Amino acid sequence: MDIEKQIKDLAIAVKAASRVLASTATTEKDQALRSMAAGLRRQREFLQEQNRIDLDKALENGLSTAMIDRLTLSDSVIEAMAAGLEEIAAFPDPVGEIERMWRRPNQLQIGKMRIPLGVVGMIYESRPNVTADAAGLCLKSGNGVILRGGSEAFNSNMAILKVLHEALATTTIPPSVVQVVPFTERQAINYLLACEEQIDLIIPRGGEGLIRFVVENSRIPVIKHYKGVCHVYVDTGADQEMARKIVVNAKTHRPGVCNAAETLLVNQEIAAGFLPGMVADLKASGVEIRGCARSCALVEDLIPAIEDDWAAEYLDLILAVKVVAGLDDAVSHIVKYGSDHTETIVTRDYQRAQEFLRRINSSVVMVNASTRFSDGGQMGLGAEIGISTTKLHAYGPMGLEGLTTTKYIVYGDGQIRE
Amino acid sequence: MDIEKQIKDLAIAVKAASRVLASTATTEKDQALRSMAAGLRRQREFLQEQNRIDLDKALENGLSTAMIDRLTLSDSVIEAMAAGLEEIAAFPDPVGEIERMWRRPNQLQIGKMRIPLGVVGMIYESRPNVTADAAGLCLKSGNGVILRGGSEAFNSNMAILKVLHEALATTTIPPSVVQVVPFTERQAINYLLACEEQIDLIIPRGGEGLIRFVVENSRIPVIKHYKGVCHVYVDTGADQEMARKIVVNAKTHRPGVCNAAETLLVNQEIAAGFLPGMVADLKASGVEIRGCARSCALVEDLIPAIEDDWAAEYLDLILAVKVVAGLDDAVSHIVKYGSDHTETIVTRDYQRAQEFLRRINSSVVMVNASTRFSDGGQMGLGAEIGISTTKLHAYGPMGLEGLTTTKYIVYGDGQIRE
Repeated sequence: MDIEKQIKDLAIAVKAASRVLASTATTEKDQALRSMAAGLRRQREFLQEQNRIDLDKALENGLSTAMIDRLTLSDSVIEAMAAGLEEIAAFPDPVGEIERMWRRPNQLQIGKMRIPLGVVGMIYESRPNVTADAAGLCLKSGNGVILRGGSEAFNSNMAILKVLHEALATTTIPPSVVQVVPFTERQAINYLLACEEQIDLIIPRGGEGLIRFVVENSRIPVIKHYKGVCHVYVDTGADQEMARKIVVNAKTHRPGVCNAAETLLVNQEIAAGFLPGMVADLKASGVEIRGCARSCALVEDLIPAIEDDWAAEYLDLILAVKVVAGLDDAVSHIVKYGSDHTETIVTRDYQRAQEFLRRINSSVVMVNASTRFSDGGQMGLGAEIGISTTKLHAYGPMGLEGLTTTKYIVYGDGQIRE
Repeated sequence: MDIEKQIKDLAIAVKAASRVLASTATTEKDQALRSMAAGLRRQREFLQEQNRIDLDKALENGLSTAMIDRLTLSDSVIEAMAAGLEEIAAFPDPVGEIERMWRRPNQLQIGKMRIPLGVVGMIYESRPNVTADAAGLCLKSGNGVILRGGSEAFNSNMAILKVLHEALATTTIPPSVVQVVPFTERQAINYLLACEEQIDLIIPRGGEGLIRFVVENSRIPVIKHYKGVCHVYVDTGADQEMARKIVVNAKTHRPGVCNAAETLLVNQEIAAGFLPGMVADLKASGVEIRGCARSCALVEDLIPAIEDDWAAEYLDLILAVKVVAGLDDAVSHIVKYGSDHTETIVTRDYQRAQEFLRRINSSVVMVNASTRFSDGGQMGLGAEIGISTTKLHAYGPMGLEGLTTTKYIVYGDGQIRE
């Protein structure tokens, strides 16, 4: 069994199918998405039977309860997958949208038209529902997709693929627009990353180790984010009650995700008045504080922060707190320790709000809002295939539009170059 | 001398300087560009003296007359470099442009603001004037740039850098926003490509060998095009006089560049009437024709094309010609043999014009115009740093906007996630 050749053949098949999908009408794509949703609902028992094989193996291998929970295709997870596909069907289709048109002095009329990227390779570790979500987003945006999920979800992923293929077989879209790499070997990832003639973009989702492995081994452009070290800066003169609510929400609403706040920066002019109440709120929500020397001097019982705390992505109920001299100092700190993900300023000052928005070039920059809004769904981009801190066409939450690029279209009347 | 460390330090310096440049006002950037132009004019003798060292070495090494011509910093080349920088100063600044804003149900106001990519790495073989052009485009778009030109132009490139640095020293912009890798060793490219923490994007310009080397050795995203196999499709019912002019222009206006046509596809319904006159025009311009079997049957004295001709980028006065059954056949041929660069249809038919624009996903798709218009300057994008057939944020001719990406900006009033 030559795994390398089989993966290459799979990529060639997906590319060929993606050419058909690229010019498939929106109505047909939406109908296909609804058939896929119906198929998942109808085949619930089959999916759960195949999921059982993965679950039994996971139990045998002593996987954690949290891991097993994420692996389980419960009734509600299957319903959510189906509903997700129907939601994607309801989004506007970005393909074919013309962004701008302009006319040249020689009367050439030029515009930019959105087109699919072509073929996307997704490499992920997470829940099997990503298989259906990614297939749906890629189908709607006109892209072929090759999925490589975690080996612990292998049977679940293959079962989902079977159901999606059966649904596509009733449409004009070739089922090969979505494929799952049918090998659990790590080496299969390398073979996939070598298909540069077939795959236009790789999106890895998972731990930093997986993402670094992909970046180091890929000749295909990779859209990624390693981590989210998100900052909240509370400016002098801020509405302190608003600031406290935003900080608590940004830290505690869901501490384990990349858009949770990890560091609080407080202007020195208000620190003495603001920090004690802020810390009390955070402690009441179970948050452990790692404070700079000045914070520790202002509030009792803080754990002194060490250098590593400023760059830490805790993904937990822990928050680093630092008193800064002002906006310049806050910006310098974010530039030095940030991860280009999401930062927010809490302020009442017009000038500093605008300056923060201009000077911070993280993928999402906010004024007076919780970092937790840095999310494709929350921002109105439709579902989200990932978040990018790679400064390419998609920087920040990546929805349907992030899965497309633009080509130039030119309308002439016989123009030639003189 | 630790080359690896020196290149890393250079990259770190450029990144630090690029942070300052990213929020420099347009007026200051434009003033710097004009100072750079004035410096190049004023220091013409110094530039030519340093260029002489490269030219003497080139003569010693027996470089071709064409190569030596490209290497020479004549008075007119230096004037063109200076004028190019002044033109860039006159272009609108893409940085800070807000593309769209929308409001969410919870009143969050969200938009996309253009920002520089950060630091660009340019690796090129061509003329030393690229050094000034690339420095100017990157400066205007707010990017730091590390340049690595051909070793045969080393002294010329270092001299240009010196002049640009002297001009920048009179502004608020740190001179380190532009640097040249001061090593001619091939290994220096590998060290540059390993600076993934400092460099956001690599743009290689040169032969296919150089570009493949860069792609295979880079962990940083690469924007590139390997070649331009551009097609002209002459539809049934086309204005045949227009078609003949477009084909001759696309092939002969400048045969050595990537947007020159390499293959002519002719609808079978008009081939017998159209091809003899078309071939006569081309032959009159010195073009050699490689025809498919049906073309050879219609016109005498054509060289029969072999399979390799369909994928060939001749960069010369040679054109492959094929008779096709219709639009479907033309599209299939382009998909199979094309390079995603530029294709044009000559037609009078509304439906087929639209269908060609929709179905061909090359970076530039035209109706009734010469492929030679596939150029940043001709399309009104400002000067051009390169052409991309990588389907990322820049696909097609890449001007100032292609050197930027967008971040999301969010205006809130204290919103938190419920």
